Amino acid sequence: MQKIEGRSLVSEFTIDDLKKAEGGRISLCACVHKLRRMSGFTFVLLRTGRYVIQSVYVPGLCEKTLQGVCEGAYVEITGDVKEEKRAAYGYEITLRDIEILSAPAAEYPLHVSDRVLGCTLDTNLAYRSVALRHPHERAVFRIQEGVVSGFREFMLAENFTEIHSPKICAAAAEGGANIFKLKYFGQDAVLAQSPQFYKQTCVAFFDRVFEIAPVYRAEKHNSTRHLNEYIGLDFEMGFIKDMTDVMQMETAMLRHVMEYLKKNYSHEIEMLGADIPEIGEIPAVTFFEALDILGKERNQFDLDPMDEVKLCEYAKAEYGCELIFVTKFPGQKRPFYAMDTPEDPKLAESFDLLFRGLEITTGGQRIHDYDMQLKKLERYGIEPEELESYLSIHKYGMPPHGGLGIGLERLVMKLLGLENIRQASLFPRDMHHLIP
Amino acid sequence: MQKIEGRSLVSEFTIDDLKKAEGGRISLCACVHKLRRMSGFTFVLLRTGRYVIQSVYVPGLCEKTLQGVCEGAYVEITGDVKEEKRAAYGYEITLRDIEILSAPAAEYPLHVSDRVLGCTLDTNLAYRSVALRHPHERAVFRIQEGVVSGFREFMLAENFTEIHSPKICAAAAEGGANIFKLKYFGQDAVLAQSPQFYKQTCVAFFDRVFEIAPVYRAEKHNSTRHLNEYIGLDFEMGFIKDMTDVMQMETAMLRHVMEYLKKNYSHEIEMLGADIPEIGEIPAVTFFEALDILGKERNQFDLDPMDEVKLCEYAKAEYGCELIFVTKFPGQKRPFYAMDTPEDPKLAESFDLLFRGLEITTGGQRIHDYDMQLKKLERYGIEPEELESYLSIHKYGMPPHGGLGIGLERLVMKLLGLENIRQASLFPRDMHHLIP
Repeated sequence: MQKIEGRSLVSEFTIDDLKKAEGGRISLCACVHKLRRMSGFTFVLLRTGRYVIQSVYVPGLCEKTLQGVCEGAYVEITGDVKEEKRAAYGYEITLRDIEILSAPAAEYPLHVSDRVLGCTLDTNLAYRSVALRHPHERAVFRIQEGVVSGFREFMLAENFTEIHSPKICAAAAEGGANIFKLKYFGQDAVLAQSPQFYKQTCVAFFDRVFEIAPVYRAEKHNSTRHLNEYIGLDFEMGFIKDMTDVMQMETAMLRHVMEYLKKNYSHEIEMLGADIPEIGEIPAVTFFEALDILGKERNQFDLDPMDEVKLCEYAKAEYGCELIFVTKFPGQKRPFYAMDTPEDPKLAESFDLLFRGLEITTGGQRIHDYDMQLKKLERYGIEPEELESYLSIHKYGMPPHGGLGIGLERLVMKLLGLENIRQASLFPRDMHHLIP
Repeated sequence: MQKIEGRSLVSEFTIDDLKKAEGGRISLCACVHKLRRMSGFTFVLLRTGRYVIQSVYVPGLCEKTLQGVCEGAYVEITGDVKEEKRAAYGYEITLRDIEILSAPAAEYPLHVSDRVLGCTLDTNLAYRSVALRHPHERAVFRIQEGVVSGFREFMLAENFTEIHSPKICAAAAEGGANIFKLKYFGQDAVLAQSPQFYKQTCVAFFDRVFEIAPVYRAEKHNSTRHLNEYIGLDFEMGFIKDMTDVMQMETAMLRHVMEYLKKNYSHEIEMLGADIPEIGEIPAVTFFEALDILGKERNQFDLDPMDEVKLCEYAKAEYGCELIFVTKFPGQKRPFYAMDTPEDPKLAESFDLLFRGLEITTGGQRIHDYDMQLKKLERYGIEPEELESYLSIHKYGMPPHGGLGIGLERLVMKLLGLENIRQASLFPRDMHHLIP
């Protein structure tokens, strides 16, 4: 791979480079994160793309003075690296030269260089482009990157093909008020609530597919666990014997993601004090068993947020696991494409995965047989004509298949113990935030 | 990584597995691609997730008969592998058992098992879920996957951070008729035409970022080179000395992508007869030099499609390269955030990359200085208040930076020599296609 010449030094820079340069000279580009003037010298904390490095300016040792060097300025520096146990990472740079590449027009309106940002979430979101300059804030999105990279690496290794399906779709049969609508060259269109139909379509010829893409829900929730635009990690796989194949695939995938994070993102995990779970086997209970555990009557059709918290407490206490599958939900709260449970058609071969008190996945086995799907549509009162294009996949043949969708921000939120899902989105979209 | 038990055999299957099983027995899941009845035996072509394998049914040798086995059925087979030079990949399976997992309700309306699909593009798109079952059609999207994977692998190795930015945005200052509009909880919103503002924002704290995500253009084109929803491969990098850093990064990235394709997708490259270019140095000419080459007056501000074809012919003839950069476009056709050329402020530090006669990239250096951006907005007649959130990134400091966006479908179209960009999109969106 060709390395690019020029000023792009900073992104080549790692803590290992610093170690290797000990006793020698190094050049790098960075943002001036903090200036701390002492008597006779000044600490200049340098924020690179991943680290905050301690450098020290001593008059007379440096080619240039600190004139014009302010917090928020971007600089290129040259300096001598020496061991310094009191500095972060154990090294310090004595500045020999500092060149200002660009200077800000105003001081940060937030305390970007404090250990903790220490403002309300509203203020954080109002000054999002500044808040994200805080090392803790940006580290959340390095972890997010790690989850996505680990997911993709696992999927590709398991021979899933990555697909890209459209997000502008014809008005959906599932309908409902929770859909963003728009006009598409005069036609009624909606923003996709999931890549469901498309990933099923692709199973017919790729066997296994996955997609990482935005998902839209026009829900009027104003909760700590809902976003109106979020990233879905979706997969769908053919030739399953039943939905446990999908659950096993998810378990193995999550195990890989956690190992991937520990291997590649230990810097951010440590900074954020994140507790990355060890994933062995994940316990599974049926929906009715879950109601029994909760001490509830078997007359409800879904779990509420408090149920999810309690079931995770149960899994932790009984199995030492922070995750739990809930399976075989009553069919009426599950979509028309869910496979009925053979022993009891009032139930669906559908599951949720709960993690630290929050549902992060919905999945299951889908109907692959054309006639079975037509009959279930009748039960749901949906006209087959509305779904003609979708039904063509069953008509011309589908293998037995199933899959799931994971909410990326929910997974990251729970991994990092964040209180609000907005903290796990670079530029969150909720009922009140359309900017930035 | 835990391997999943169960029926999910097919996706573990490779041609190497077939070779290794020679003289022995193999089990796999597949779709019955074609049945060819001969005297005394039947060829059963099996379509797995990536290959079409020849098997042969001989009455008496197989546990079950072929009753109910039809084209389009999904089956699990067991058979003996033997060398057979006349079969694809050089191996043939003698069927010992065949179990039908699911059967279609109707025959394919297209010739999925013919060597070439041989229908019009309109018919192909009308029956998209069937057309994609043709090995050539699906292979296009394996190549697409390869381009995306190669791009991402390169970006991560160069320490770019992967980001996810929202696609529902506040009505943009750039405005224009080419934007899809929608209502977002009572507010006016639009679908993002690019992740431009967001990737610039993230350069302030990550130095280098990239995104792979849908991009929306409501252009009323009905051409062979425009889609209304497509996948953008975007990157943005800080600490550049000028836009040539960005051009060099793109050159190295494309070189890596081509090597990645040759290494991992030779099966599909061969099947489609694709000509994957060797990328050395890519020649660059300024916009005015380009007009000279084209024998045109220096009084136009942009290139037309025929100019792009001719410039690529020129690059091929002069430099033996199928790509050419065109740089320093007149500013008036470039966006307000483009850096002016220092020697001539009527020009912009902005470039296009042309490949086999088609523009596949627009990029350049962006303005990082707050006052410079305010002055340029005045020239463009844009009120700073409309862009307050965006301008905060300049106000609180940005390093010198630049980046680009690549149209994934255009790149794949030209790589594979497809005639129409719709062939390079799984489920294309144009003025007339909102389904499937």
